[in-house]
Amino acid sequence: MPDTPRPTAAMIVIGDEILSGRTQDINVQVLAAALTERGIALSEVRMIPDDAAVIVATVNDLRARYDTVFTSGGIGPTHDDITADCVAAAFGVGIDVREDARAILATNYADPERELNADRLRMARIPDGATLIANPISKAPGFTLGNVHVMAGVPKIFAVMLDGVLPTLTGAPPLLSLSVRIDRPEGELAGPLRGLAERYPDVSFGSYPYDRNGRLGCMIVARSADQARLDEIAPQITALSA
Amino acid sequence: MPDTPRPTAAMIVIGDEILSGRTQDINVQVLAAALTERGIALSEVRMIPDDAAVIVATVNDLRARYDTVFTSGGIGPTHDDITADCVAAAFGVGIDVREDARAILATNYADPERELNADRLRMARIPDGATLIANPISKAPGFTLGNVHVMAGVPKIFAVMLDGVLPTLTGAPPLLSLSVRIDRPEGELAGPLRGLAERYPDVSFGSYPYDRNGRLGCMIVARSADQARLDEIAPQITALSA
Repeated sequence: MPDTPRPTAAMIVIGDEILSGRTQDINVQVLAAALTERGIALSEVRMIPDDAAVIVATVNDLRARYDTVFTSGGIGPTHDDITADCVAAAFGVGIDVREDARAILATNYADPERELNADRLRMARIPDGATLIANPISKAPGFTLGNVHVMAGVPKIFAVMLDGVLPTLTGAPPLLSLSVRIDRPEGELAGPLRGLAERYPDVSFGSYPYDRNGRLGCMIVARSADQARLDEIAPQITALSA
Repeated sequence: MPDTPRPTAAMIVIGDEILSGRTQDINVQVLAAALTERGIALSEVRMIPDDAAVIVATVNDLRARYDTVFTSGGIGPTHDDITADCVAAAFGVGIDVREDARAILATNYADPERELNADRLRMARIPDGATLIANPISKAPGFTLGNVHVMAGVPKIFAVMLDGVLPTLTGAPPLLSLSVRIDRPEGELAGPLRGLAERYPDVSFGSYPYDRNGRLGCMIVARSADQARLDEIAPQITALSA
């Protein structure tokens, strides 16, 4: 573990389509990599169904325990898109169509008077006190309420919303990492690695085995916020290949 | 929601490499699809770090709330592979190298006396009272303790262990699904879909928008355990394309 305490974050992936196996989530990895780069620890991810009671309870559980919470999914126009209402309920605030959100949404339609129907207008429902997260792709905004960032599930919209949110986050010196490929099976490296982990308790060591056409090996990864520490360790990991 | 209550399951994905963004999980979708096919509802997924206290608490929370729990990750030979010990701790049972697991593991090495070192032998540590899950690929077994199935994180090993576990699960009539592609944007379909959801409260309706080269459309999915119900609904969904 690094010396500098990193801010913590959690993610809630909302949607029956993930839990039924219909859809492969890819937003977790996008968020995880972006947070890691900024020195923020993604500490927990929950994937939950489109169920109001579960969403409300999960938002309240995680926002109390982590510095920042991200949600993905459930902010579209259909009856199963209930995330915004659930987040409002979790915070105990009202929710209604907001004029600025409505105006942004309207830019997505050639004839807003006709096409911005009651269902699409649901996407302009914003909890009281929230700030909007821009969606340059399909306009319907996400929002931030307290420490909770509510974003779309569609991966390219999630990614562009994240780009908007990242500069607002307070990070820490990012964890640096050192990766060394060792062409020996994991079972032979476990002992020396354990020794390194004991000798450098402030550094996190991981080992990721691979099988390349029957040739077993490991990617050894050391993580620390301190480059000098990694420089000291590098030759000791490299020496394991002998 | 279907009439027949489906057995419930949860999954715990264990590993810093997932939460750092280094690795993209693909086991969730494999498990989700397999359970859906067998009429078992995957109700929740948690992704958590290699942290003993968190693993123990999560296993105990979820095994009490769901019929079945699956874990992936953290059963290799290195110091950060702590899942087996944590599951034993969660159940309050002992854990030690077990002779049958050791014998199976030994078949993976040309010279077990030399190569089955202390670190590899950790993979034969099995909690008291557990039954083994076969691993035809790299031999190191998973195990089932109570309602918790402990499996590898490496996707091809996870998948083959799952094949071994599935026949032991009690399922229910699987949810059948009906998918219809409608070449109209989601915002125009939300109203009619809401009507269908109100008229058929026993059927679950989902809508998954797509953007195919600028042409917006939706995949509408209806799920029910009752084929007659879906047959009745099919023409009503198809009619939405007009």
